[in-house]
Amino acid sequence: MTDHLHCDVLIEAGWVVPVEPKGVVLEDHAVAIKDGVIVGILPTFEARQKFSARERIVKQDACLMPGMVNSHTHNPMTLMRGVADDLPLMEWLQGHIWPIEAKIIGPEMVADGVTLSIAEMIRGGTTTCNENYFFPDVQAQVYKQHGFRAMVGLPIIDFPTPWAATDDEYFDRARQVHDQWMGDALISTAFAPHAPYTVKDESFKRIQMYSEQLDIPVHCHVHETQFEVDEAIAQTGMRPLTRLDKLGLVNDRLIAVHMTALDEGDIELCARNGVHVVHCPESNLKLASGFCPVHGLHSRGVNIAIGTDGCASNNDLDMFGETRTAALLAKAVAANASAFGAADALYAATMGGARALSMDDRIGSITVGKQADLVLVDMSSPETQPVHNIVSQLVYAVGRQHVSDVWIAGVRKLKDSVLTEMDAAELSANAKSWRSRIAGIQL
Amino acid sequence: MTDHLHCDVLIEAGWVVPVEPKGVVLEDHAVAIKDGVIVGILPTFEARQKFSARERIVKQDACLMPGMVNSHTHNPMTLMRGVADDLPLMEWLQGHIWPIEAKIIGPEMVADGVTLSIAEMIRGGTTTCNENYFFPDVQAQVYKQHGFRAMVGLPIIDFPTPWAATDDEYFDRARQVHDQWMGDALISTAFAPHAPYTVKDESFKRIQMYSEQLDIPVHCHVHETQFEVDEAIAQTGMRPLTRLDKLGLVNDRLIAVHMTALDEGDIELCARNGVHVVHCPESNLKLASGFCPVHGLHSRGVNIAIGTDGCASNNDLDMFGETRTAALLAKAVAANASAFGAADALYAATMGGARALSMDDRIGSITVGKQADLVLVDMSSPETQPVHNIVSQLVYAVGRQHVSDVWIAGVRKLKDSVLTEMDAAELSANAKSWRSRIAGIQL
Repeated sequence: MTDHLHCDVLIEAGWVVPVEPKGVVLEDHAVAIKDGVIVGILPTFEARQKFSARERIVKQDACLMPGMVNSHTHNPMTLMRGVADDLPLMEWLQGHIWPIEAKIIGPEMVADGVTLSIAEMIRGGTTTCNENYFFPDVQAQVYKQHGFRAMVGLPIIDFPTPWAATDDEYFDRARQVHDQWMGDALISTAFAPHAPYTVKDESFKRIQMYSEQLDIPVHCHVHETQFEVDEAIAQTGMRPLTRLDKLGLVNDRLIAVHMTALDEGDIELCARNGVHVVHCPESNLKLASGFCPVHGLHSRGVNIAIGTDGCASNNDLDMFGETRTAALLAKAVAANASAFGAADALYAATMGGARALSMDDRIGSITVGKQADLVLVDMSSPETQPVHNIVSQLVYAVGRQHVSDVWIAGVRKLKDSVLTEMDAAELSANAKSWRSRIAGIQL
Repeated sequence: MTDHLHCDVLIEAGWVVPVEPKGVVLEDHAVAIKDGVIVGILPTFEARQKFSARERIVKQDACLMPGMVNSHTHNPMTLMRGVADDLPLMEWLQGHIWPIEAKIIGPEMVADGVTLSIAEMIRGGTTTCNENYFFPDVQAQVYKQHGFRAMVGLPIIDFPTPWAATDDEYFDRARQVHDQWMGDALISTAFAPHAPYTVKDESFKRIQMYSEQLDIPVHCHVHETQFEVDEAIAQTGMRPLTRLDKLGLVNDRLIAVHMTALDEGDIELCARNGVHVVHCPESNLKLASGFCPVHGLHSRGVNIAIGTDGCASNNDLDMFGETRTAALLAKAVAANASAFGAADALYAATMGGARALSMDDRIGSITVGKQADLVLVDMSSPETQPVHNIVSQLVYAVGRQHVSDVWIAGVRKLKDSVLTEMDAAELSANAKSWRSRIAGIQL
């Protein structure tokens, strides 16, 4: 036929879950990709008539869904996975994490940690992350090199670190990294003030001004624990979120991470101002930080995204696991078994993240015109049978090991569960050398 | 050399985690198996001198641990995985689960559900389960046929079901199944009264008497929700656990499942009487049932075991996932990041289960003289690197997909991640036919 449209890849799947509209399931559909962009979503038999594809992928027993957006990570810390667990927050930080970081932090550690994390994320169906660590210049370069979509945080904190010594240096370096990557197709930037208790008013004011000028998000740990809230009230007379509001930061550019210990006023403030909340349920549980009222926020219309947090506290970058935990925990916290259902949780892990990162014009759903950040999930194993409800299955039964294929911007990163561009054995060997190096550090 | 001891299998692993003693890690050790029993645990270089093995397995980058004990399942319900989610308990039961069960329950459904579950359990490193459903005769036969270790519950409930019509019939059939399997190496039995709110005093008294005579455990849902406790107080003037105590059932034969909404008196009662608590964290979260005070029980010396509950509510039989959730959730519930650490959680998933099922003389740890129920976990993938702490890694980073090899009573059930005696594709095909059958039921 001469009226065929050409595309690069045509993926035919037993189920397509586009995420938007929420809860919709398209059976026996195909998605066409051209130049990294989704150009068609239609019943398979129609797709075969309409498109001639350079590559055709047929997976009857699989579900095609958008790539997951891990909305809060500290990926260089993947090298410290499990180095110190089951400890109270301050003992964990002061006795273990900080002394180790003091010895290893730098471009080499950041590059190696990010590289290992990219492999883990791709193998687990994550195609975008929101990074929050030092040396964003190095991070950006590594993400770009591997064709991974990332928002890198530009760190701001009140004390000197290997990344910057003074407030001005933090802002200068932030500006530098921002300018270098502005307009890049895969890498974007956000301000990343560490937390209300480690960043002074003056710095928050500068962040507010620059984030508005540059139109970039502000990625910040907020209300991680009740202790943080109590201390802030004792020291400033205000809840941390109230203080951020007074400083002009509570708006739809704010990516507020953790958000436990919220009262009705906090929830109302978030709802009114379009704040994006990144829920990190496993980190909150493991560090006994508290509970984020996901159902309360969600039912007031607050956008919820999901993040794994860093591997030193979580201890993985498994967005399927994190999404499942989010869906389970929200019900218990709300004492309501209907709260934050499977479709809500899946939305949070994809579109919710895309919206939080201001990327929802490009990613987060399978929509014509969006980037082809796509994941195929195999449903043929005993663990994923029978399939009564594909959305339930994705959230409550599927594990990241069922991810068989991954595309980022139309480039296949995982093929039949094997990384196309990275050598897993080499990565593990490198991780082992870091293991020895870290084991040798005197605490 | 002529002074070699002969063994059937010698497994050499980078790490051996015997679980007992708790927290111990043996690096570069080997475990010798003869006639299904563990006959040696020693450094690999010594093992090679001491034993001549028919089969030698060398996995440097793997950890050998005891098989997991799933201490509460309803495995026939695996055929209903995801059939109804995100619903309040009563709507879920009355509007979906019970009407579907009414149409499909019977020997065929039980056999097919159990068979599918055995595949899932083996692939995920579980070697024993504590089953709780109708038709224990069929269950026992299927578990035995596949060489899987199981305790089957002998159901007792106040109303007629396809399994039995009257109280006497329930007890007669229970006795029949018990007598048939008494002394079997793999199959054992327990009384399984459904719950305090569905079993009358008279039946509990008979269970108490017979369980003492036969020396078998009593496996019962107890305190699943605050509602159950409140209703019991309204109707009987007593908390359910208090009533069971008055009936003589609160002792070290009681396997009490769920155990949310416990007060100090309940905890004290359990501690004093050696009750075994089966914690099902994911089911409790998903059905918004409440929180089991794991740290409170554990710190008072109560034995904790872990169960997945049935796939209609969980929706999987993933003991690695469940153990991880248990370890995470206990900290948040206790507001203590040191509560129920990795070694405690791993103990609960193995030895804790073995003790609950009165099988700790045979399974639950890697101990000379115990059955060779063993699991090898591969640590070479990016998700499980680096390995700073192997016990942390097993609980917080490993997923069931990292299980490469499984033995039950010395018989290899999984070899390099492939089932040795079951056809996964055939099982999936059968599950699909159940999917169609269930989809056709008018609710």
